[in-house]
Amino acid sequence: MSRVMKKRSRKAGMPPGTLIYLGDDKSTATRITLLHYAGQQVVEKEIQTAEECQVFLDTPGVCWISVTGVHEVEKLAPFGKVFNLHPLVLEDVLNTDQRPKLEDYGEYIYIVLRQLKNSSPSNGIVTEQISLVLGRNFVISFLESESEIFKPVKERILQTRGRICNQGADYLAYALMDMVVDNYFSIFENLGERIEELEELLISKPAPEQMRNLHALKRELLSLRKSVWPLREVLSALQRGESTLIQKETGLYLRDVYDHTIQVIDTLETYRDMLSGMLDIYLSSLSNRLNQVMKVLTVVSTIFMPLTFIAGVYGMNFHNMPELGWRWGYPTVLLLMAAIAAGMLIFFRRKKWI
Amino acid sequence: MSRVMKKRSRKAGMPPGTLIYLGDDKSTATRITLLHYAGQQVVEKEIQTAEECQVFLDTPGVCWISVTGVHEVEKLAPFGKVFNLHPLVLEDVLNTDQRPKLEDYGEYIYIVLRQLKNSSPSNGIVTEQISLVLGRNFVISFLESESEIFKPVKERILQTRGRICNQGADYLAYALMDMVVDNYFSIFENLGERIEELEELLISKPAPEQMRNLHALKRELLSLRKSVWPLREVLSALQRGESTLIQKETGLYLRDVYDHTIQVIDTLETYRDMLSGMLDIYLSSLSNRLNQVMKVLTVVSTIFMPLTFIAGVYGMNFHNMPELGWRWGYPTVLLLMAAIAAGMLIFFRRKKWI
Amino acid sequence: MSRVMKKRSRKAGMPPGTLIYLGDDKSTATRITLLHYAGQQVVEKEIQTAEECQVFLDTPGVCWISVTGVHEVEKLAPFGKVFNLHPLVLEDVLNTDQRPKLEDYGEYIYIVLRQLKNSSPSNGIVTEQISLVLGRNFVISFLESESEIFKPVKERILQTRGRICNQGADYLAYALMDMVVDNYFSIFENLGERIEELEELLISKPAPEQMRNLHALKRELLSLRKSVWPLREVLSALQRGESTLIQKETGLYLRDVYDHTIQVIDTLETYRDMLSGMLDIYLSSLSNRLNQVMKVLTVVSTIFMPLTFIAGVYGMNFHNMPELGWRWGYPTVLLLMAAIAAGMLIFFRRKKWI
Amino acid sequence: MSRVMKKRSRKAGMPPGTLIYLGDDKSTATRITLLHYAGQQVVEKEIQTAEECQVFLDTPGVCWISVTGVHEVEKLAPFGKVFNLHPLVLEDVLNTDQRPKLEDYGEYIYIVLRQLKNSSPSNGIVTEQISLVLGRNFVISFLESESEIFKPVKERILQTRGRICNQGADYLAYALMDMVVDNYFSIFENLGERIEELEELLISKPAPEQMRNLHALKRELLSLRKSVWPLREVLSALQRGESTLIQKETGLYLRDVYDHTIQVIDTLETYRDMLSGMLDIYLSSLSNRLNQVMKVLTVVSTIFMPLTFIAGVYGMNFHNMPELGWRWGYPTVLLLMAAIAAGMLIFFRRKKWI
Amino acid sequence: MSRVMKKRSRKAGMPPGTLIYLGDDKSTATRITLLHYAGQQVVEKEIQTAEECQVFLDTPGVCWISVTGVHEVEKLAPFGKVFNLHPLVLEDVLNTDQRPKLEDYGEYIYIVLRQLKNSSPSNGIVTEQISLVLGRNFVISFLESESEIFKPVKERILQTRGRICNQGADYLAYALMDMVVDNYFSIFENLGERIEELEELLISKPAPEQMRNLHALKRELLSLRKSVWPLREVLSALQRGESTLIQKETGLYLRDVYDHTIQVIDTLETYRDMLSGMLDIYLSSLSNRLNQVMKVLTVVSTIFMPLTFIAGVYGMNFHNMPELGWRWGYPTVLLLMAAIAAGMLIFFRRKKWI
Repeated sequence: MSRVMKKRSRKAGMPPGTLIYLGDDKSTATRITLLHYAGQQVVEKEIQTAEECQVFLDTPGVCWISVTGVHEVEKLAPFGKVFNLHPLVLEDVLNTDQRPKLEDYGEYIYIVLRQLKNSSPSNGIVTEQISLVLGRNFVISFLESESEIFKPVKERILQTRGRICNQGADYLAYALMDMVVDNYFSIFENLGERIEELEELLISKPAPEQMRNLHALKRELLSLRKSVWPLREVLSALQRGESTLIQKETGLYLRDVYDHTIQVIDTLETYRDMLSGMLDIYLSSLSNRLNQVMKVLTVVSTIFMPLTFIAGVYGMNFHNMPELGWRWGYPTVLLLMAAIAAGMLIFFRRKKWI
Repeated sequence: MSRVMKKRSRKAGMPPGTLIYLGDDKSTATRITLLHYAGQQVVEKEIQTAEECQVFLDTPGVCWISVTGVHEVEKLAPFGKVFNLHPLVLEDVLNTDQRPKLEDYGEYIYIVLRQLKNSSPSNGIVTEQISLVLGRNFVISFLESESEIFKPVKERILQTRGRICNQGADYLAYALMDMVVDNYFSIFENLGERIEELEELLISKPAPEQMRNLHALKRELLSLRKSVWPLREVLSALQRGESTLIQKETGLYLRDVYDHTIQVIDTLETYRDMLSGMLDIYLSSLSNRLNQVMKVLTVVSTIFMPLTFIAGVYGMNFHNMPELGWRWGYPTVLLLMAAIAAGMLIFFRRKKWI
Repeated sequence: MSRVMKKRSRKAGMPPGTLIYLGDDKSTATRITLLHYAGQQVVEKEIQTAEECQVFLDTPGVCWISVTGVHEVEKLAPFGKVFNLHPLVLEDVLNTDQRPKLEDYGEYIYIVLRQLKNSSPSNGIVTEQISLVLGRNFVISFLESESEIFKPVKERILQTRGRICNQGADYLAYALMDMVVDNYFSIFENLGERIEELEELLISKPAPEQMRNLHALKRELLSLRKSVWPLREVLSALQRGESTLIQKETGLYLRDVYDHTIQVIDTLETYRDMLSGMLDIYLSSLSNRLNQVMKVLTVVSTIFMPLTFIAGVYGMNFHNMPELGWRWGYPTVLLLMAAIAAGMLIFFRRKKWI
Repeated sequence: MSRVMKKRSRKAGMPPGTLIYLGDDKSTATRITLLHYAGQQVVEKEIQTAEECQVFLDTPGVCWISVTGVHEVEKLAPFGKVFNLHPLVLEDVLNTDQRPKLEDYGEYIYIVLRQLKNSSPSNGIVTEQISLVLGRNFVISFLESESEIFKPVKERILQTRGRICNQGADYLAYALMDMVVDNYFSIFENLGERIEELEELLISKPAPEQMRNLHALKRELLSLRKSVWPLREVLSALQRGESTLIQKETGLYLRDVYDHTIQVIDTLETYRDMLSGMLDIYLSSLSNRLNQVMKVLTVVSTIFMPLTFIAGVYGMNFHNMPELGWRWGYPTVLLLMAAIAAGMLIFFRRKKWI
Repeated sequence: MSRVMKKRSRKAGMPPGTLIYLGDDKSTATRITLLHYAGQQVVEKEIQTAEECQVFLDTPGVCWISVTGVHEVEKLAPFGKVFNLHPLVLEDVLNTDQRPKLEDYGEYIYIVLRQLKNSSPSNGIVTEQISLVLGRNFVISFLESESEIFKPVKERILQTRGRICNQGADYLAYALMDMVVDNYFSIFENLGERIEELEELLISKPAPEQMRNLHALKRELLSLRKSVWPLREVLSALQRGESTLIQKETGLYLRDVYDHTIQVIDTLETYRDMLSGMLDIYLSSLSNRLNQVMKVLTVVSTIFMPLTFIAGVYGMNFHNMPELGWRWGYPTVLLLMAAIAAGMLIFFRRKKWI
């Protein structure tokens, strides 16, 4: 959490529109791929500079510029000129810690999404920013690092399969967002399994480590919440069809993604409720075990203290203790002790302590 | 929970409108029954393909197509053509893990409901998806598995009894939704009894197993909530009569179902409050019992420790211990011990510990 | 709670408008009283069938038909015809477990209220349904059982006292609702006293029984909430004067009842907060007492364990223990023991444990 | 709390508009003061009956009738006629347990505020009702008892100081409300100090009495909430300038009071959060101290139990115990005991228990 | 908290518009700096009285009057006349304990912000009020004390760098607000680090001091909340562009600051959730440690009590105890004791207690 703040504070005091990459990943070289399709005609091309897009933009059809790796500021800056983007848009593309949002600039819509990734098991889930710029006949997608997330869409276009080929740029933007939300389901499946495993562990053998896992899961959910909740508003705004860039037919599909997002949010909230229920289980089991321990102590003490006392009495050195001289004194006392111990045991058995 | 996510993630990456059944139940063979009625004339017919409906649709009256078992995708696909349904509608019919929702496509309304079923006692309550498509003169109902839930409506139609025979398709849709909500009452009755039983157990003999039952009930309520809460919005939207498919008179009846749903939701929230109150009872009773155990230990220790000490003193082997030679030394010490024990008992009695 | 659900589930599957009494009280014979007044002219009459009202309805003035005991379905059914009521209205009159609601049928308004009654102390507060039908020149009130609640209004009319005689049916409906809400104040007074008594008990001598009382009070508040909260919306809707049946002047009076309802709700919420604060007190006092018990145990153990050990040492039978032969050995050891005990006591006194 | 309900229930069943004083304070004789000002001309006059105001009402300028002590119903009733007030207004003036509210009767606005007073320290804060009636050219203020709260406003008028003299009745009403809210700040200052004192006590020496103080403060905040929260809505409604009685310029000043009220509410909520944080501190410190106590007990037991056991072994009376005859037997055993004790101490020191 | 209330209560009873400084800092001499710029022309001038601004206001371009130190009331009062400000505006500039707010006076907008400052580590974060008055061609900024916060903006203007030089007063106001919000990020970064440090400490070695730190952090967050939350509404209102003083283009930039504020609020809420999760960890670890302590006590007691009892039995002085005379009596008993101790150890090992 403090890491996010640290990154942002690096930019404090700079004028708005200053292009500085705030992410961690500087290893991914910026790679720009252009995909132009109109019905059955598809062109795929790796390009070096934004200017190369101009030709395709002037051709009828939809143009998808896919940018992977956003830390090479000098490669991104030209997009501002070619696509006539507001300086704040490019700034936001580089500020990779933003929450999902939608900004309608009239000529184009700028959309921020967050992609979830399972990192190595110890670190849980990490999020990466995906920026989309949806124009009249183009979509630009900015990814922080190499990712397979948009591959199915790309293949559907290349194979000129499905309705996507005959639809506009808005449908392409929908298809990309659909991929991001679909990906949430598999991330959440994994998360749900981890929660259920922890739950079983907590019930079978509660231990402090599990409390720490519980806490870690809680923090993960907190950060997922920030990635998923605002998406709801983004999709709700898109689906209401206030922008002329979104056709009515595409609105129906966006409603579908919206429904999926609600389902993801529902699951998230259910997970939170489950975790807080698990805390109660853990605390009550701690209490329970203390009770068990104390019962053992109390039973042992209550049985042996009176016996030890009796032994102590007949260990006294008074000259005049008639019992000591009795023939059956010793066995009688042993029997008495056995009787007391038996009585105590019956008493505790009745109290259900043993 | 993670199961739901798992099913959904099976579809990740596929284009929208892909028909894949996501439910568990593949044993129910798809069975399609058609019921056509107009006043006193009723026709019931088992049909094989969606195309057979066309004739009845062109006849005046209401046509109810009841589909049971939705996993045979090839049988469902033709409905799309015959009734001119959007691909997303059929996709949603097959995605059987959706929350209740309402989608108005103009020509028809698509409604998702969830039916509650008491499974074998150990597993609690399960939910199944019911999809309704309400058109101008037809209703299509999709059930996941064989169910008696719509039987009363069917019988009322077959016996040409009640107002249903003279009403339109909207009234039929209302009658079906009414059955689903009515069914909630009996499920909730059963749930309420389980909660009350648990409450009595928790008060009479609190034990860790009951804590686990409590937790299980909480999770059940969490999942019921997701089935029932969204229904409220669905019915509220229907009742406001924004669609031309709903007549004003039917709106009054829908308001009635809406009221019942509110009552179910109220009960659900009350159950939740009761369960969280029961957790407090359980935790406080654990605390209480620890207090009881500790009091026993303290009373026993406090009585016998001083006595054992005195016995220890007169068990010392000093040559010069005048008390040991006294004639009444032993009885005096015994009396002293008895007095100390009695004093302690009185002290604890005053403190209300025993 | 589960009782409510049980009653409702008895009706599951029946067509809407089916008249079945769902309440418990079948002992109260249905009694119908008619009160017709216009200025100083008042007529009171016990009637047998709804048809007898027709004459009075056609006479100028206000007609109040008061029905007590609603389980004799055959007596209530005729009201539907005479007053032209929707079948759902009569069904709702008989479903006596409904939450307060308002239904505007244009020609008349149907209002459901809930009356609170102190049952025998052990059972706490019970609620009964009161239904009002407000028409152009009539009010029908349905009570589940004999009740004095509307007596003051009746007397005001019979004595042609106050403004009520010169006002319309809407003012009569207001007066009846005012009585119901006024009655809440005395019920809540009693409840508040019980809460304060419990609070004093919890502070002076916390015990598990009081925890149970606390829980019982919580459940009572839960059920009261369901009776009172929705009333707020009912009165708010009435007061906004959307119906032509409510005159503007009466709206001012309804605003007054609305204010009273808000006050009742405020009190309810305060009671809830008080109860949850009392739970904290109880739990902290349990913790406190455990601390007390443990301190006693620790003090006793810490004093007597070293002493018993010393006595044990000089009880050993080594041949060569020079101290045993010393003349002042025994008194010295006794003094040592006394010193240790005193030291411990001072130590614990400083720690504020005793 | 139950007291409020008790008072209200005294009125149950009476017709609306019945004038009965429901407050506690019957000692304050009703005193009516009239203040009429127009620019630099000010008249102050003690009056006996409401009728005396008539002359001043017909003179240009603003008329402030200040009524102190509202239990003499016969003195208040005439105000209804002279100022043409609705019966419900006078009824509300006498029902001195109302929450702040605003009622716009067109010709005049009726405002209820609650004044806070520090009562003797043991009882905390009490509230009194202040009613304002704002007309075209007059303000009537009703106070339950003698109070200095409006003195500064009065003096400003008498000294014809400040803008108040040249403003209308709406500005006077604003000035009075401003005094009430300003007074909250000093009450809250005092409350804040009590909370901070308690916080320090809870951290330095937690004890059950402080838990009770905490609970008492919580209840005080609960009742303050009911006095302050609704004021927000009152001022928000006034400031929006929906009434023609409020001039636009005065609206700016009302916005200022509104801001102050928000600040008071913010502080109230912060206090609530602080109190609930203090409960956590108290409970955790109880737990902590139990840990301390148990550690002492465990350390003492763990050291002395083995030692006592060893002493017991050599106190056995077996004839054949070679160690007893050894020359260095006794010192060896003593050394062994010392070693065990030292070992234990080192062990506990390492565990940070001592 | 009570300090804020104390300051405010100093002003109770004074007429509105009274200028009294309510802050603590009276050491900062009031310093007024004027900055006038139009394109590439920039004038900077230290001025003594507000009247000196008049000349610049009449020149085309933007005029930024920066006031540092607001306790010299006599220097601030003239601003009221020169800029035609409402008396309440200057009063609010001096009341330095206000929450962020926006007041639109038509001719100018008055904005209150709160700047966060890291005070010396022991005291955590303090807040200072920043007031902005945005007019047609001027911005007045009031700071409580010397601060570097607006330096970057000043430098950008002096170096005629960036778009700011060619924009209006609204863009200047935006730039200043942007600086304030940017500053939050670095404050929150620091806070986040403190929270994470505490979290690690709580998990590794929980101690009461950390509980106190936790509580202190909670209180800091409470006070930050009051500084940051209302800012959201302020920026939302500004960005909606209801005022004619804000140009559409600047609205886009304001939306950007608004987004940053949302991000800060998100982080704040996450911090709160983290702190409450840390409390759970602390309490559960206390419980856990009690369990550990009690297990040690129970193991020790359970092993040594039976052994001591056996030693006590053979320490009894009965004349007729045959075992005492046996040749292998003593070793047998020692072996028995060892067997019991070993048995106990195995038992506890199996129970996972040791």
